[in-house]
Amino acid sequence: MPPPLRIGIAGLGTVGAAVITLLGRQAEALRRRTGRQIAITGVSACHKAKQRGIDLAGFAWFGDCAALARSPGIDIFVELIGGEEGAALAAAEAALGTGKSFVTANKALLAKHGMRLAALAEEKGVALAFEASVAGGIPIVKTLREGLAGNSIERVYGILNGTCNHILTRMEQEALSFADCLREAQKLGYAEADPAFDIGGFDTAQKLAILTSLAFGTVIDPAAIAVEGIESITLADLEAAAELGYRVKLLGVAQRTPFGIEQRVHPSMVPKSTAIAQVMGVTNAVTIDADAVHELTLVGPGAGGEATASAIVADIADIARGVRSTPFGWPVASLSPARHAPMQLHEGGYYIRLSVFDRPGAAAAIATRMAERGISLESIVQRRRPGANIAPGGAVPVVLITHATHEKSVRQALEAAVDDGFLAEKPQVIRIERE
Amino acid sequence: MPPPLRIGIAGLGTVGAAVITLLGRQAEALRRRTGRQIAITGVSACHKAKQRGIDLAGFAWFGDCAALARSPGIDIFVELIGGEEGAALAAAEAALGTGKSFVTANKALLAKHGMRLAALAEEKGVALAFEASVAGGIPIVKTLREGLAGNSIERVYGILNGTCNHILTRMEQEALSFADCLREAQKLGYAEADPAFDIGGFDTAQKLAILTSLAFGTVIDPAAIAVEGIESITLADLEAAAELGYRVKLLGVAQRTPFGIEQRVHPSMVPKSTAIAQVMGVTNAVTIDADAVHELTLVGPGAGGEATASAIVADIADIARGVRSTPFGWPVASLSPARHAPMQLHEGGYYIRLSVFDRPGAAAAIATRMAERGISLESIVQRRRPGANIAPGGAVPVVLITHATHEKSVRQALEAAVDDGFLAEKPQVIRIERE
Repeated sequence: MPPPLRIGIAGLGTVGAAVITLLGRQAEALRRRTGRQIAITGVSACHKAKQRGIDLAGFAWFGDCAALARSPGIDIFVELIGGEEGAALAAAEAALGTGKSFVTANKALLAKHGMRLAALAEEKGVALAFEASVAGGIPIVKTLREGLAGNSIERVYGILNGTCNHILTRMEQEALSFADCLREAQKLGYAEADPAFDIGGFDTAQKLAILTSLAFGTVIDPAAIAVEGIESITLADLEAAAELGYRVKLLGVAQRTPFGIEQRVHPSMVPKSTAIAQVMGVTNAVTIDADAVHELTLVGPGAGGEATASAIVADIADIARGVRSTPFGWPVASLSPARHAPMQLHEGGYYIRLSVFDRPGAAAAIATRMAERGISLESIVQRRRPGANIAPGGAVPVVLITHATHEKSVRQALEAAVDDGFLAEKPQVIRIERE
Repeated sequence: MPPPLRIGIAGLGTVGAAVITLLGRQAEALRRRTGRQIAITGVSACHKAKQRGIDLAGFAWFGDCAALARSPGIDIFVELIGGEEGAALAAAEAALGTGKSFVTANKALLAKHGMRLAALAEEKGVALAFEASVAGGIPIVKTLREGLAGNSIERVYGILNGTCNHILTRMEQEALSFADCLREAQKLGYAEADPAFDIGGFDTAQKLAILTSLAFGTVIDPAAIAVEGIESITLADLEAAAELGYRVKLLGVAQRTPFGIEQRVHPSMVPKSTAIAQVMGVTNAVTIDADAVHELTLVGPGAGGEATASAIVADIADIARGVRSTPFGWPVASLSPARHAPMQLHEGGYYIRLSVFDRPGAAAAIATRMAERGISLESIVQRRRPGANIAPGGAVPVVLITHATHEKSVRQALEAAVDDGFLAEKPQVIRIERE
């Protein structure tokens, strides 16, 4: 049997502790699976004395994680520090630069420096593995990079942020407001004190940037992604969606179009019958449309110490078995640039919720504005709630569903409707993600 | 760049033609992904002259597939012949015996000879790859063998036969009888003229045998599987299931129990809210419960030329990248025997549909028989259909749902109820698969 594979782990929070526990629990199984003993030799974190519920006595302690990364006593450096710069970046460069394989759960680091780190890994002939960085325990990186290697991918889309999905699920199931659900999620520890990164769609965008590169062979470029969050979603939208056979989900979508790979993060209406629509709470899911496999969906935990550790350990096991994939499926030098595909060119169906002054000619004027831009409507729902008395000249809700059209046409038609003076509020627009 | 990887393909039906098409279409992408050119050099089938819609002119023709398998002109032999013995087995032994990697979609061959072929592959240091043999385009083999390498798996279960799921879906959605749906499936080409292999659960059992080995490190042993088909499922069962919040699916289930790995194929009641319950038509799905990842579900096409070719080409790409996993995740010599875990020891909830003579004391007697065996009931539904007149002494339907109990207790209680003379028909029993 070859010598043990020596692991250094930097960052001993929830995930780090779970990785140490899992490597211990599965030690014998991993030895049988990979033909090598996998041994943690060094660890690093900010505070040595902190209580973590794990025994660190058998591991060398490094106060400086870059020193651990450079140490000749390890073969693989596992980075669980977090952050797109600073200690994580320095350690990544130190590990790869000295010929160690690098395993990480750090989507921010990859979204910003992934290409440079991948090129370094290729140059040194070592692994850069990051299954844990997207969708936690779901093996989506392996599936895109290896499992679908024979496919040309048309679209990859998914629920990549558990916080947002938890909030939307609670809003729908309990008829609560966005603000109430956000507060609840913060209490449960599902949302940060500053929730903007999650609910604004930026966390989803970082993960989508990585998936896009794997799926389409493009350079990672979060700046090419159009991002909208879920802050503007109201209960009225969820109720109208339900009535029309849809659910609202925050999706990250990367899609092949005539204008390039369109990358976007925004609330989407998805037909209730789709696998993605069934995904509730903090669970994540990714669907891939491809020419050979047609449609494949993976559903599982997007976060949590154990689920993330599952992905980290799978990466370590691959390296132990001697697998050396190029990190993004193709050599970095052969990746194509990711262009920003303007949302104005986006083509699809639209849900539009309007608050229309209850005046003669209002509906006709709006329908005319749509028709002028060649937008055909699949459905129009104008319904007063039972018991709701609307004063003459008051506003009534009108929900439109369009057939596939261009975003630019929709925006222009709505601007014209606003100018006509029939709308009591800013129109709500949610894109429909077709099956 | 290393020399081209030379592929020989035996069996040029739908899947074979799709593999040739896909390797052609993806040639450049595969070269970039794997760093090697992948070139088909030889093909073999029964009838050279048959029209297949693909150009075979560039490939050497072999009338004898074993000769192709032995040929020094190939590095990988792709077996798409089918059948558990005969030409497929001879070719497998010829290929592996002469040091070629062997890629197959043949579940029957693996279910019968998988261990021997895996041992031969390990001895020769070549690959035995079979992603296409279970659940078509779903990368479940890779997920179990590699993606979840850090997990101890508790249960793997899934919809592995599209024919059965199509029939059950049609029965439920159109309120048609089993016989009508089977005839329809045969007309659509989803079911064979002799459908016993599919609807009797035997196809699912072969696939489950492979998944069990991957998930639990056991020797493949289809004989250890308890198998029941869907022939006895009636519309009354689907309607009662719907009313109680369940759907009926033919599942293959392998589960860790105190008595060993329980392997079983039978119709199951699954809660409508589960990912598996949402899977309709010919689609396949597999859910894995494991200690680290908790729950992971993969949904995708279980059959079809292109989806199967997707899996075959992924296996070829792995081999081209130099990946050499042990075929079943662990060396064959270290696999543990798969014992037959008797269904009498199965523990779970049960759906029981009875046809009870409408006589005083009938319900009490049945409830007593259940109580005597310590079976507690979650629900009892006795409902006459509107307008159904039952003659005095006629039979009424009664549906029981039990809490978790032992199969033996259920069978004994029902035997006693039959002996009591209150039942007009043989009881219908369907196991409930918990979330």
